[in-house]
Amino acid sequence: MIIDRLIDRIKETGNPTVVGLDPRLSYIPTYITEKYYTKYGKTPKAAAKSMLKFNKKIIDAVFDIVPAVKPQIAMYERYGIEGLKAYEKTVEYAKLKGLIVIGDVKRNDIASTAEAYAEGLLGAADIDGVPCGSLPHDFITVNPYLGSDGITPFTDSCKKYDKGIFVLAKTSNPHSGELQDLMCDGKPVYEHVGALIEKWGEDLIGENGYSSVGAVVGATHREQAARLREVMPHTFFLVPGYGAQGGKAEDLAVCFKDGIGAIVNSSRGIIAAHLKDEYKLCYNDERLFALAARQACIDMKNDLRRCI
Amino acid sequence: MIIDRLIDRIKETGNPTVVGLDPRLSYIPTYITEKYYTKYGKTPKAAAKSMLKFNKKIIDAVFDIVPAVKPQIAMYERYGIEGLKAYEKTVEYAKLKGLIVIGDVKRNDIASTAEAYAEGLLGAADIDGVPCGSLPHDFITVNPYLGSDGITPFTDSCKKYDKGIFVLAKTSNPHSGELQDLMCDGKPVYEHVGALIEKWGEDLIGENGYSSVGAVVGATHREQAARLREVMPHTFFLVPGYGAQGGKAEDLAVCFKDGIGAIVNSSRGIIAAHLKDEYKLCYNDERLFALAARQACIDMKNDLRRCI
Repeated sequence: MIIDRLIDRIKETGNPTVVGLDPRLSYIPTYITEKYYTKYGKTPKAAAKSMLKFNKKIIDAVFDIVPAVKPQIAMYERYGIEGLKAYEKTVEYAKLKGLIVIGDVKRNDIASTAEAYAEGLLGAADIDGVPCGSLPHDFITVNPYLGSDGITPFTDSCKKYDKGIFVLAKTSNPHSGELQDLMCDGKPVYEHVGALIEKWGEDLIGENGYSSVGAVVGATHREQAARLREVMPHTFFLVPGYGAQGGKAEDLAVCFKDGIGAIVNSSRGIIAAHLKDEYKLCYNDERLFALAARQACIDMKNDLRRCI
Repeated sequence: MIIDRLIDRIKETGNPTVVGLDPRLSYIPTYITEKYYTKYGKTPKAAAKSMLKFNKKIIDAVFDIVPAVKPQIAMYERYGIEGLKAYEKTVEYAKLKGLIVIGDVKRNDIASTAEAYAEGLLGAADIDGVPCGSLPHDFITVNPYLGSDGITPFTDSCKKYDKGIFVLAKTSNPHSGELQDLMCDGKPVYEHVGALIEKWGEDLIGENGYSSVGAVVGATHREQAARLREVMPHTFFLVPGYGAQGGKAEDLAVCFKDGIGAIVNSSRGIIAAHLKDEYKLCYNDERLFALAARQACIDMKNDLRRCI
């Protein structure tokens, strides 16, 4: 089952880190962007080609030391169809290098509409009897606000195609509490969502005791995460918010149980490491950006392992 | 302001109907699909070309009698990049014909990621100082689960580019209550969301007293909709669930106030009218599908006006 393959890869690399592939043009060395600006002008095509080249270099530099990458589709959709082509090619390239790919798409809709998303992002659409392959994600992220009708079409695809989803439970942003922390029957909304996620995942539990239906639980809310770890024993956590958003290894350690149970995302902290003071000195040529990213993955691994 | 232009168009046409452009291949007459299957095989490209041709015929048949269309992006994303090209061209064509376009994308993310979505779907991205136009939506739908950090980037774009959003409050699906009806401090979650939506929209109120930040309120929950109409006096409603999902004009009339205040979506009921028994007799040639759709828009208008 896909969740077992993710756990295996985490054990092999000893690194519960997922690299967020959320490129911004400001992160990309000018030797890359200038080449494409010269060729295509300052166009979506040039932006997209730059992002793809950047991602490939990052993937080449880290694929052997991290289990997974998480491209954030918003960063690509920003540049329209050209951007989405770069997203597609990034997913394909990461798969080719043996990485688990978590598409951060936060899709949500109901019934046959959610089914259409599931077909395009996890399964296969049907064209008059001919199956039409989807993007080769292993997991995607999904928003739970619509309830079971919005989730079942995705879990059906997970069963059929051996894929997984991470459902938003408690997000890492400062105002996540506006809805997620509302108290209902003595429990916050995110805990109700947690109980639903456990239920949605009960038919997809793998050999390691975790389900292919996981949860997004922010690194910035230590106590809530600890509580969710308790009430969601079969749910693997995808943990955003480490680093740039203020989440620390000490805080998110509660998401783990016996050293597994979670994977921690870092985007900017890794892919833009070359712009940070602590790496600038060693990687003092923009062409070394991917090596800086590799070092940041190693440093993150050591930081996490110190605490879990 | 865009909300005033939507209201003006509703008044001009006398029809608070939005046509959901959610094509499935099974809705599309074979004279269209066969042409493209012959040319491109049973491929995503053929599916996408069929959808676009179908949409254009529908738009040509209804643009003068309805104010708006709402393409559902899932139906296009199902066929990957080719599908998304058909989505883009559908949005552009509808704009060309003077329709208000509501992109049903239900995006949600935080801070700079939500900003990237807002740039791609409502505003403009920046490529080293050169603005890069987005899809020409007038409105998009947004999911509120992440709270204000997930909404402000969209409302900022609404202000800058004179656009609007519809935020999910109470959806039309059977299990929407799992989260949305949880009671917190004596009020269901959707009412808390309703209060947030009113707040998010307070700087975007137009001449008619409604904000460019609207709400999605399902036609299938009459009492909840009535209560939301009361507590959200400045919020325009986008109402799904009419027809195929069981919502009736009598039930959703509570979404209106003095004949305005809402726009009602129908997808299948209009674009697949030619497959329904009641239209099959009159439109007994598949080439007449767009005329059947036109008649369905007129019938829906009469049905709604009977009640509001």
